Amino acid sequence: MYTVKKILSNIKDFDGKEVKVLGWTSSLRGNKKIKFLELNDGSTVYNLQVVLKSESVDLEVVDKTRDGAAISIVGIIKHTPNSKQIAELQAIEFKLLKNTDEDFPIQKKEISMEVLREIPHLRHRTKLIKSVMLIRSTLALEIHNFFSKHNFLYVSSPIITSNDGEGAGETFIVDSESVKDFFGKKATLGVTGQLHAEAYAIGFNKVYTFGPTFRAENSHTKKHAAEFWMVEPEVAFYELKDIIKLADHMLKTVIKKTLEVNKLEFDFLEESIDSKLREKLSNFVNKKISIIDYKDAIEELKKVKTDFEEQNIHFGLDLATEHEKYLAEKLFQGPVAVINYPKEFKAFYMHQNDDGKTVSAFDLLVPGIGELIGGSQREVRHEKLLSRIKELSISEEELKWYLDLRRFGDAGSSGFGLGFERLVMYVTGIDNIRDAIPFPRTPNNLKM
Amino acid sequence: MYTVKKILSNIKDFDGKEVKVLGWTSSLRGNKKIKFLELNDGSTVYNLQVVLKSESVDLEVVDKTRDGAAISIVGIIKHTPNSKQIAELQAIEFKLLKNTDEDFPIQKKEISMEVLREIPHLRHRTKLIKSVMLIRSTLALEIHNFFSKHNFLYVSSPIITSNDGEGAGETFIVDSESVKDFFGKKATLGVTGQLHAEAYAIGFNKVYTFGPTFRAENSHTKKHAAEFWMVEPEVAFYELKDIIKLADHMLKTVIKKTLEVNKLEFDFLEESIDSKLREKLSNFVNKKISIIDYKDAIEELKKVKTDFEEQNIHFGLDLATEHEKYLAEKLFQGPVAVINYPKEFKAFYMHQNDDGKTVSAFDLLVPGIGELIGGSQREVRHEKLLSRIKELSISEEELKWYLDLRRFGDAGSSGFGLGFERLVMYVTGIDNIRDAIPFPRTPNNLKM
Repeated sequence: MYTVKKILSNIKDFDGKEVKVLGWTSSLRGNKKIKFLELNDGSTVYNLQVVLKSESVDLEVVDKTRDGAAISIVGIIKHTPNSKQIAELQAIEFKLLKNTDEDFPIQKKEISMEVLREIPHLRHRTKLIKSVMLIRSTLALEIHNFFSKHNFLYVSSPIITSNDGEGAGETFIVDSESVKDFFGKKATLGVTGQLHAEAYAIGFNKVYTFGPTFRAENSHTKKHAAEFWMVEPEVAFYELKDIIKLADHMLKTVIKKTLEVNKLEFDFLEESIDSKLREKLSNFVNKKISIIDYKDAIEELKKVKTDFEEQNIHFGLDLATEHEKYLAEKLFQGPVAVINYPKEFKAFYMHQNDDGKTVSAFDLLVPGIGELIGGSQREVRHEKLLSRIKELSISEEELKWYLDLRRFGDAGSSGFGLGFERLVMYVTGIDNIRDAIPFPRTPNNLKM
Repeated sequence: MYTVKKILSNIKDFDGKEVKVLGWTSSLRGNKKIKFLELNDGSTVYNLQVVLKSESVDLEVVDKTRDGAAISIVGIIKHTPNSKQIAELQAIEFKLLKNTDEDFPIQKKEISMEVLREIPHLRHRTKLIKSVMLIRSTLALEIHNFFSKHNFLYVSSPIITSNDGEGAGETFIVDSESVKDFFGKKATLGVTGQLHAEAYAIGFNKVYTFGPTFRAENSHTKKHAAEFWMVEPEVAFYELKDIIKLADHMLKTVIKKTLEVNKLEFDFLEESIDSKLREKLSNFVNKKISIIDYKDAIEELKKVKTDFEEQNIHFGLDLATEHEKYLAEKLFQGPVAVINYPKEFKAFYMHQNDDGKTVSAFDLLVPGIGELIGGSQREVRHEKLLSRIKELSISEEELKWYLDLRRFGDAGSSGFGLGFERLVMYVTGIDNIRDAIPFPRTPNNLKM
């Protein structure tokens, strides 16, 4: 048995060969003598065209086949380089393994993304969501490959945790349904795996997490979900410039590989969403990352402040998406890392710069999406970290273990967080996070 | 900069070469003229022996270096094939980057596993936990590699869910701390990703999940944790025999690769835990899996019933670990899949056999640990599935979406669940799940 992807990728070898394919129908047309059926087997978004003739198979059975039905076909592959489809399968044997009921909602007619979000268990059977999920899977695997190749330890940071990493952001509370106070203390769903990853970076040097994280923000934007996956590498002995380099290298490698692996899906996305998708991604892959100091970015933004809704551009401004987009899309026309942000709107654990005002943080901004990655060099000086924790009235007791890392051979580390669904959005061109994850969770929305 | 693992794996190339290594001290001895220091950089459990002489480096600085201190060394690698250590680093430059405070708990003296569990942020700096976590990381990556190579789609099943997959087992409840009823309905942490994976198998054919799952069982055994990672493949068109073959193939491939990648860690584990660890794993890899019908297994157990605590061996008995161990360790002396269990103690979604009594399920039992994997062919007949759901008084409304899959082109699928920490335990030889995951969560135990 072969996958459609395998056949198409080696079409010359398969020309004239008998194969068996299993999959699902996505369209059927024709007459009593000959029928054309599109088969999708999930290996790619591309449908294999099947030609069924009355002299070979029973077309009455074929005729009963509705969209979405499971079918099995044995036939001969024919390479057709001069027609629209590069291959067809000339059926010898046709089996209708399981039909769909007539109310199967994924039909040929166009369905809105909103309606599809109501049926997350079925929507991946559309070409668009199928393409997105195939690319999502490749991105995830290529991220693992990248870190594996560069000798990172994959760490499972805990999901249920007793401290919230950012010292900010709404959290979800967890408890057993039957045994109250199951853990003997307040338990929340982790908003980040970073602090735990930091503990592991000391001793393992290079580590990363890749797991689900949670925010209970009552937010209904296209960019926010209550449950999303984060990639968080942490490297001992790294400083800010090293971790920016890693972020850039990782993104470029992963995107480049995904462009190769999912060629057919990008073909489809360019037809249906953004005809310049590959051009955008190739620019990203080929362009050297720019780096700009936050204070210089502020000066640049001042020059064009009338372009923005928020025109009060000053040192201390927490950049809005419109400002971020200007920097990436207009000023640099490519990825740009903004560094050395004012400490006020950054987390407590970031390395405090000598100016007393800024921290060694960076946000990686990309055209079309704004912030894709945020990271920093960590504050490794025990007394500096402690004073910042006190300044922000974060519980010192809860973070005693984290502070202790600084007493036990921590010579510094740096790391970043990549919102995985943001990457999926950026790479596929879709504009809503609800379509970048199989079963999205948002306020008042918990399907299945 | 090179890792110790890289240097050791290519020791002949590195002989005589100048290198820089970064890592942590794990032992220091010697006199005023010469000192020997063991450096670990986290790439392997193996410590690189560093020789420091007073004519090359300032031994007074070296002398201040406590266990766990971060250090940087430039030196010449010397291949020493005839001594206990196969290599040493002759230091030219030594830098103490960050010392440890004197109360650093990981010292040379032996610390019990119980005490180490109190300091999960530091315990990976022991050789044992370091070895386990290095192997854990390899196992995870090799699992991804296996599925990727065999064209599986990696699916993120949701963590927060509105239904509990098994129709059994205690669940954790989730809600926002500030906005009550955040999702507009009861939300729990998923006990399995299987049902969602099934939805994706129809359309994608071969899928797998690899993510955290949760049980709120008030259990204090060595085998149970409240949070653990599961690997759950699901394949459309597969029957029971196919999925058993997949489980066997996956385990053998992953274990074989891990034995190659983590050679030095297995050396250490054989020295410290189980001198026959590799022999056990090689047997597993090389031995053909056995398959026995549950009813035949019962007959076999009856023959030796006086060996067991539970001696009431009869059709309908839910096998205890002692019975499972007998089958794997004594009777088959290797992995064995027990199939066709009575439906009473298996989940509602399993394919009902024609005898009306059993379901097409399997448990994969392995020597030393008992059940490692459980799986089944799924019930694809809508009416059979529905009647079982009613029989067990499971909410039909909650599972409407799952029932609907059977109406929309589901020609059958099979899958299994592998408790990832069980695999880590089996492969490393450790006997407590708390030591198989970085930050274990159990009742009344939530550190960090």
